[in-house]
Amino acid sequence: MADFKIGGVVPPVVVPDTDDHRLDVPSFERLIERMLAAGVNGLFFLGSSGEVVFSTDERRREIVREAVRIVDHRVPVLVGIIETETDRVIEHGRSALALGADALVATAPFYALGGMAEVEEHFRILHRELAAPLFAYDIPVCVHTKLPWKLLARLGAEGVLAGVKDSSGDDVSFRYLIQENDALAHPLSILTGHEIVVDGAYLAGADGAVPGLANVIPGLYVEQWRAAQAGAWQRVKELQDRINEVSHIFDVTSGVQGYAGGVGAFKCALHLMGVFSSSQMPRPVKPLSGYNVEAIRKVLLDTGVLTA
Amino acid sequence: MADFKIGGVVPPVVVPDTDDHRLDVPSFERLIERMLAAGVNGLFFLGSSGEVVFSTDERRREIVREAVRIVDHRVPVLVGIIETETDRVIEHGRSALALGADALVATAPFYALGGMAEVEEHFRILHRELAAPLFAYDIPVCVHTKLPWKLLARLGAEGVLAGVKDSSGDDVSFRYLIQENDALAHPLSILTGHEIVVDGAYLAGADGAVPGLANVIPGLYVEQWRAAQAGAWQRVKELQDRINEVSHIFDVTSGVQGYAGGVGAFKCALHLMGVFSSSQMPRPVKPLSGYNVEAIRKVLLDTGVLTA
Amino acid sequence: MADFKIGGVVPPVVVPDTDDHRLDVPSFERLIERMLAAGVNGLFFLGSSGEVVFSTDERRREIVREAVRIVDHRVPVLVGIIETETDRVIEHGRSALALGADALVATAPFYALGGMAEVEEHFRILHRELAAPLFAYDIPVCVHTKLPWKLLARLGAEGVLAGVKDSSGDDVSFRYLIQENDALAHPLSILTGHEIVVDGAYLAGADGAVPGLANVIPGLYVEQWRAAQAGAWQRVKELQDRINEVSHIFDVTSGVQGYAGGVGAFKCALHLMGVFSSSQMPRPVKPLSGYNVEAIRKVLLDTGVLTA
Amino acid sequence: MADFKIGGVVPPVVVPDTDDHRLDVPSFERLIERMLAAGVNGLFFLGSSGEVVFSTDERRREIVREAVRIVDHRVPVLVGIIETETDRVIEHGRSALALGADALVATAPFYALGGMAEVEEHFRILHRELAAPLFAYDIPVCVHTKLPWKLLARLGAEGVLAGVKDSSGDDVSFRYLIQENDALAHPLSILTGHEIVVDGAYLAGADGAVPGLANVIPGLYVEQWRAAQAGAWQRVKELQDRINEVSHIFDVTSGVQGYAGGVGAFKCALHLMGVFSSSQMPRPVKPLSGYNVEAIRKVLLDTGVLTA
Repeated sequence: MADFKIGGVVPPVVVPDTDDHRLDVPSFERLIERMLAAGVNGLFFLGSSGEVVFSTDERRREIVREAVRIVDHRVPVLVGIIETETDRVIEHGRSALALGADALVATAPFYALGGMAEVEEHFRILHRELAAPLFAYDIPVCVHTKLPWKLLARLGAEGVLAGVKDSSGDDVSFRYLIQENDALAHPLSILTGHEIVVDGAYLAGADGAVPGLANVIPGLYVEQWRAAQAGAWQRVKELQDRINEVSHIFDVTSGVQGYAGGVGAFKCALHLMGVFSSSQMPRPVKPLSGYNVEAIRKVLLDTGVLTA
Repeated sequence: MADFKIGGVVPPVVVPDTDDHRLDVPSFERLIERMLAAGVNGLFFLGSSGEVVFSTDERRREIVREAVRIVDHRVPVLVGIIETETDRVIEHGRSALALGADALVATAPFYALGGMAEVEEHFRILHRELAAPLFAYDIPVCVHTKLPWKLLARLGAEGVLAGVKDSSGDDVSFRYLIQENDALAHPLSILTGHEIVVDGAYLAGADGAVPGLANVIPGLYVEQWRAAQAGAWQRVKELQDRINEVSHIFDVTSGVQGYAGGVGAFKCALHLMGVFSSSQMPRPVKPLSGYNVEAIRKVLLDTGVLTA
Repeated sequence: MADFKIGGVVPPVVVPDTDDHRLDVPSFERLIERMLAAGVNGLFFLGSSGEVVFSTDERRREIVREAVRIVDHRVPVLVGIIETETDRVIEHGRSALALGADALVATAPFYALGGMAEVEEHFRILHRELAAPLFAYDIPVCVHTKLPWKLLARLGAEGVLAGVKDSSGDDVSFRYLIQENDALAHPLSILTGHEIVVDGAYLAGADGAVPGLANVIPGLYVEQWRAAQAGAWQRVKELQDRINEVSHIFDVTSGVQGYAGGVGAFKCALHLMGVFSSSQMPRPVKPLSGYNVEAIRKVLLDTGVLTA
Repeated sequence: MADFKIGGVVPPVVVPDTDDHRLDVPSFERLIERMLAAGVNGLFFLGSSGEVVFSTDERRREIVREAVRIVDHRVPVLVGIIETETDRVIEHGRSALALGADALVATAPFYALGGMAEVEEHFRILHRELAAPLFAYDIPVCVHTKLPWKLLARLGAEGVLAGVKDSSGDDVSFRYLIQENDALAHPLSILTGHEIVVDGAYLAGADGAVPGLANVIPGLYVEQWRAAQAGAWQRVKELQDRINEVSHIFDVTSGVQGYAGGVGAFKCALHLMGVFSSSQMPRPVKPLSGYNVEAIRKVLLDTGVLTA
C-alpha cells in the first residue's frame, strides 16, 4: 500500500444507463475495452462523472463488481468513495475493497462544513481504518472546501495519502503541490483532472491526468502522455489543441448546465459513436435531445471523431 | 397526506452520542421528554443539526426507530431524508416511512448541481414515489441551491409539497413565499429555521419555527409562539431578545467553526445542563473543550439557563 | 456631530437622467417634493441606487448641490461617499460637506480587499479627517465585505460611527447589532435597507428604514413608520404586505438583472407615474422597454399606484 | 491603434510610497530602470498591484506622468483606467492618453453589476470614445464578473479590443481564448497575469505575461520568455520552478491577507533589496513588519535574490 504509484492517463469512467435506468453492462464493456485498447494506464470508477452521487449503494456495488470483472487486473482500478462524512465514507471504502478495488478516492467532507483540522482528521481516519492506497480528491466546486497544498504534501510525506486527484481549477496551488512533492521525494502520485490544460500540467511535472473526455477520445490522450514522456512538448501542445476542439461538445449545447451539460455531452457523444446504446441520464437529470444532439454530432464530425 | 398541516415550535432534535460514538438513548429520551413537556408542536429528526450526514444508514434507522418509540404519537415526527440525489433520497424516505415517520423533509440535490428544472423534477419524483407529506428543506449554505419561492408555492398548490422548512437566510424570499402561499389558500405549512429572528417571521405570517436552540430552551420558544398566537407582539419581541442572549453560546467560542461551533455548542450546553451525558461529536468533529466550555457555561449562568 | 440622530423613513433617492444623460433637475425636484410632502424623515443621496458609482465627480457634485438646494434644511441630507479606498473616499467626503451634506455614508473598501483590521482603520481615518456624522454602509453584495456587528457596535460606542445603513441581507447580524447597540446606550442610528421586511426590522428595534421603493410609494412607508411608533404591529404588517405587492415591479420583468432590473424598475415606474420625464439609465445600462414597461404598468394598476 | 501588438514580459509596476504617503520618485526610477535593464518588453502602470484604486486622481496623474518621463519610449507604457462604471473610466482614459499612455487597460464595470450585454456595451463605448489601444482586464476576484472568452475573441475580431490581460485564474477559459484568437488570425495580444504558471501559458500560446513578481526578479522572467521563444520548454519549466521558490514571499507571512500580503510582500522585498527606500503601503493598509520581514528576508536569501 505504501508503494502504490500511478501515472499516465487514468480516465474517470462514465457509466451507461439503459432507458429504464439499469446499468447497461454491454455498453460498459465496450467503453472499458476501447479505453484499454487505446493504452490507458488506469481507470477511475465512481468519480463525479461516474454517477457516484446518483447511485444507490446497491448500484455502486454493481458498478464496482462489473468494473473489476471487466478490467481483470490489466490496469489499476481506482474507486471513488464519495460521501458526506467520515463514517459513511468508510462504509463505501470497505465495500469497494471487498469487491477488488486497488485504490480509493475520497473528497473532503461536505454538506456540513467545519475547519481544516477536521478535514485532516477525516483523511487520517480513512487511512487508518481502510488500510488501502488513498487518493485525496480535491473538488471544491462540489464539496466547497479547497484542500491546501501544504496539507496534501504533509499527508503524503506521512504515508496517509498515496496521491491526489486535482479538480480544483487552482493551477497555482497545483503547481506548488508538485514542487513540494518533489522536494519531499515524491510520495504522492499527482493527477490533474483538468482535461483542457493537460499539456501545462505535464510540463509542470504532473504524474498523470484523469480526463473525462478520454472516455470519448482515449487515443489522443494516450498519445499526448507518450509525447510528454519523450519531452516532445510542442507535440504535447498540438495534441491538446486537437483535444480541445473536441471538447466543444461541452459548450455548443444550450438550455442545459452542470451535470446535464457535462456528463450529458459525454453520453450523447458515446451514443452517437455507437459505444453506448443509450444516452440516458440518472434521475432527475434528462438526456440531451433535439438541437443539442445535432450540435454535438457536428463537433464530432468536424473533428473527425465521427465520420459521415 | 394532502391534509398534513403543522405549526408552532418544531425543534430539529440534536442527537446525543456516547463517548465511543454510539447513540446515547437515555440522553435522547431526556432531551425529547423535556421538549414535549415544554409543549413543542412537533419534532424534526435527522435535520442538519441532527447528525444526518454523519450517520450511517443503520444509525439513521436507529435514530428514527428510537424517536418514534419515545415520541409515541404525542406530536408529529418529521424525518430528514438528506442525500445527494433522487434515488438515494428515495431509499431513505422508504426507510423512514416504514419506521413510522409522519412527514419527510428533503433538500434540493447536492454535490452534482444542475438547473432548476431538475430540482423541480426531483421533488416531483419524491412525491410520486414516496406518497407521504413532503417538506422542502431550503438550505443553500449546505446544498448550494436556493429554492425559488415561486417554485415552492407552485409545488404547494399542486399538492407536491406539504410544507417548507426555510433555512435560507433570505428573508425577502421567505416573505414573498408567505404572501404567495396565502394568495393560494395556504397549501403549505411554512416554518422558519432562523432561531434568532423568529419574531419577525411570526409577524410576517410564518406557520411555525424549527429553532435548533429550542433543544436548550424549549420553554421560551413555546411561550413566544403562544404570545404570537395572541397577537402580543411586543412580548414576542422581548422573548426573542431573551432567547438571543442565550444564543451567544454560538459566538463566545474560539478556534471552532461550522458544525463544531453550532451543534457543538448545543451539545456542550446540554451536557452542562445534565440533559446529555456527554458532549461527544460525530467523527471527524471534536467536542468543545477547555476555554470554550467555560465560555458557554458563563452564558448559561448569565442568562439563568443554568443556576450556580 | 456626536449628537446626530436620525430615525424613520429615509429614502435613498433615485436620480433622473434626461435622454441625453444630463441630470434632469425638474424631475429631481418633483421626486423630492413628493417624498417630503409624504412626510419622510430624511433623504439619502448618492446611495447605490442613486447612481453614485456611475456619476463622474462633477455629476456627483451637481447632484449634491441640487439636493441641498431643493431640500433646503426641511430634513437631514445624507450623502454617499462611495469609493474604492480611503484617500479617494475622503475627497468625496470633503466635497459633500462643502456643498452642505448633514451626514456621510461610506462602505468598506472594495476592489482590493484586505482584512478586518484595515476596514476598521478605514472608518477611523474617515472619522478623524472628515469630522462629520459618519454612517457605515453595510452592503456586501457590492463591496464583498460583511461588516461584523461587534465592530460596528464598538465603533459606535467610541463615537467613530453615528449610524449604520444595513443592506447586508443578514438579519441575524442585524438583530445582534440592535441588541448590542441598546446595551451600549444606543450610540448608533440603525437603519435597515431592506424594503420588503421593514416590519420585522421595526419590531426588532431598528431606528428607521432606507427603502428604495419609497421613491415610488413614500406614503405607505411613512404610514407604516407611524404605525410602528404607535405599537400597532398588525397594521405595520398589513402595510408591509401592501408595499410588497407593489414591489413585484422588480420581478415581473425578464431579460434584465442587477441594476437594470432594480433601479430600472424604479425609473420606469416613476416615468409611468409622471414624476420622471424619462426612464433613462446611466451608461452602459439601458432603460427598461417594451414588454417590461407593460408588466410594470400592470403591477402599478393592480395595486392602485396608477389609476387607469 | 489597430496595429498595437505587444508580447513578452510586461510587469505591472509596483508604486513606492514615502513614509508620509507621497510618491517616492527616486525609488520609482530605480525600479523602472532595473526592469528595463533586464529587458522587459513593456510596463503596465496603475494595475491592481500599482495602487490604482488607492490613488486619488491627482496621484494617478502623477504616477503616469513620471512613468512616461522615466520610460521615455523605450518600451510601450500601458495604463490601467480602473473605475466602477463607464463614464468614470472614460475620464481616467482621457487623462492617461493626454499624459502619453500607449495603451489603456480597463476592467468590467464593478460595484453595481448587470448582465453581459452591459459589459459588452461598456467596452464598446470605451473603444469609441477613447480611440486608443484597449486591453480588457479580466480580474473577477476584484470585479466579480468573469469575461467570457467568446465575447473577448469577438471584440478582438471587431477591433474593439487590442488585447487581454488575464488574471482570472481560469486556465480553461484562457486556453479557449488563445485557440479562438488564433482561429481569428490573432487580433488580440493575450497576456497572462499568472506569475506562477507562466510556463504552461507560454506553451499554450500566450503572447506574454504580466507577472507582479517581475518587479523583484525581472531577469528570470525575461530569460524564461526568451527560452520560450526558442522552444526550450524544459528550460522554461525549470526557470518557473526557480521563480516559484522566490514566490514564497507571499505565503511565509502570517496575520496578513489580500493586498497587504501580496503587494506588501513585493514592497518589503524591494525595500530589503535597496530598490525602494520604504515599504510603506497606501492607507488603510499597513506595511509588513517584524516577523514577516524576517520571513521574507529568509526566502530572498535562500533563493539567492539577496546575498548575505
